[in-house]
Amino acid sequence: MPLTEFSLIDRFFAGHKRRGDVALGIGDDAAVVDVPPGEQLVVAVDTLVAGVHFPDHTAAADIGHKALAVNLSDMAAMGACPRWATLALTLPRVDADWLGEFARGFFALAERFDVELIGGDTTRGPLCVSVQILGTVPRNRVLQRAGARAGDRIFVSGSLGDAGLALSLLQTQRACGEDERAELLARLHRPDPRVALGERLRGIASAVIDVSDGLLADLGHILQRSGVGATLWVERLPRSAAFQVCVSAQSPDWFELPLAAGDDYELCFTAAPAQADALQNLARELGIAITEIGAIEADTGLRCRLDDGRAFQPTRQGYEHFD
Amino acid sequence: MPLTEFSLIDRFFAGHKRRGDVALGIGDDAAVVDVPPGEQLVVAVDTLVAGVHFPDHTAAADIGHKALAVNLSDMAAMGACPRWATLALTLPRVDADWLGEFARGFFALAERFDVELIGGDTTRGPLCVSVQILGTVPRNRVLQRAGARAGDRIFVSGSLGDAGLALSLLQTQRACGEDERAELLARLHRPDPRVALGERLRGIASAVIDVSDGLLADLGHILQRSGVGATLWVERLPRSAAFQVCVSAQSPDWFELPLAAGDDYELCFTAAPAQADALQNLARELGIAITEIGAIEADTGLRCRLDDGRAFQPTRQGYEHFD
Repeated sequence: MPLTEFSLIDRFFAGHKRRGDVALGIGDDAAVVDVPPGEQLVVAVDTLVAGVHFPDHTAAADIGHKALAVNLSDMAAMGACPRWATLALTLPRVDADWLGEFARGFFALAERFDVELIGGDTTRGPLCVSVQILGTVPRNRVLQRAGARAGDRIFVSGSLGDAGLALSLLQTQRACGEDERAELLARLHRPDPRVALGERLRGIASAVIDVSDGLLADLGHILQRSGVGATLWVERLPRSAAFQVCVSAQSPDWFELPLAAGDDYELCFTAAPAQADALQNLARELGIAITEIGAIEADTGLRCRLDDGRAFQPTRQGYEHFD
Repeated sequence: MPLTEFSLIDRFFAGHKRRGDVALGIGDDAAVVDVPPGEQLVVAVDTLVAGVHFPDHTAAADIGHKALAVNLSDMAAMGACPRWATLALTLPRVDADWLGEFARGFFALAERFDVELIGGDTTRGPLCVSVQILGTVPRNRVLQRAGARAGDRIFVSGSLGDAGLALSLLQTQRACGEDERAELLARLHRPDPRVALGERLRGIASAVIDVSDGLLADLGHILQRSGVGATLWVERLPRSAAFQVCVSAQSPDWFELPLAAGDDYELCFTAAPAQADALQNLARELGIAITEIGAIEADTGLRCRLDDGRAFQPTRQGYEHFD
């Protein structure tokens, strides 16, 4: 008996029901869920295409993880609590092993964040994974790209440039220790969305975005939406221990990767200077580094500087499709 | 200057804001909307892949229309009122003419149903269009596939087999008048989702599905979910005037296309016999044919019969991907 679309969905994607607010899950023409009173619905969609958003031959479990992670990261950037997801999966052929691994990666992350898959569509075609994420946020408490004010400081969570470095490890003969290589590849293939941080930034941050296309591009969105400019101190960008082992501070990549490589899925946000203590307490409580990397200014445009005050001119401006 | 992802979204898909319940639309990491108190959220996703769900060289405006229409049809099948949509669009290359036409088809339909596009993701890759639709329904009033009871009658809206016939016109040398051909192709390329009918079926229908994969397959889902069987009177299936001109009643297609071809996006539903008058009034009011085509029975399985009582054995069972 051939594996049909319906048995595919049943076999790999149904039966993971977890949430009490799902009135009707997978298996009908649509799902039905209850949005809590006093909360607004937050909706995002992100697509991964083979060869564009992940290297060909990426493990299926990693693709499953990442497809959900990049959407959870959008919830984090809004300060929203993720609740439900739908999955549109286009596959060149039925491969039960691949599907099992994909589902394993997807659901391991979904369970960590208490997200229920409530709908999906499997179609035949070139590999393409589109996840829609639905979350909620208390009314009028959502975090946005707009809202940064002159005088605010600019912060970033975790470290930058790791995923970009991992991609360069896969694509070039760059040398790197085995432990560092594994750590960096995990950052590329298994991003850890900053959902808890995002929710806690409500009431603290004035503007938030997740770093998916590279810091320059993503911070640029905050500046544009907020109608402000900024100075960025490029030597202060947080670089992981693995990054510092594998990249020389004399290499152009020391600056370029944290500035312009995408896929780190950290949060970049702005906050008034008076929030500095609250942020350090939050960093300790969540066990996530939060680093001050610049300041918002009334003059539009983004100025990159070295610690001695000299201007630094980045060569790349961040990742954009269709460039 | 190259067209970037961001300018693409801005140029073709932003600026169509219409609804007062959208707190934050396109342009941030996610959208924020208000679900009315007392309503449940209804969520579906459907993907169209070139060469699978529409013939190659289908007009971009038709693809834009159909990508939204098939999702609106899912809302219709739930008795839900569609409100918001997101779009994940994967394109092999930037083609401003194509995008303009796609957007024209999409937004013309969106405006007809007062649906606002609140988010999207454009990526590079083989053409693939995934739309997520969000709607609402008064609490506990949603229509489902489960709920058909022995003794209920089976109904279908509009006519069946037109889209399948249109596909066969495109793929074979079948002869057909120009007017009929145009009418049938419109049924394939421009399905008219039965949203108004779906909303009015709340409180009347016991089970509902939309006919996307073919009547046999879709009615089969109602039977399976409801734990019942049915007899279907195959001569009573509604065939359009164009269908009757182009297909001889002696051709196997006379039965096969209405039974097994997909893409008609009519509603198939069950209702108690006492609802017959209400349904005829509704049909008149909405100007949509509603035809009784069979009856639900306690014995599981689907039995097709001719009017003289003889059994009819369909050769195809409906469309399934990956078959």
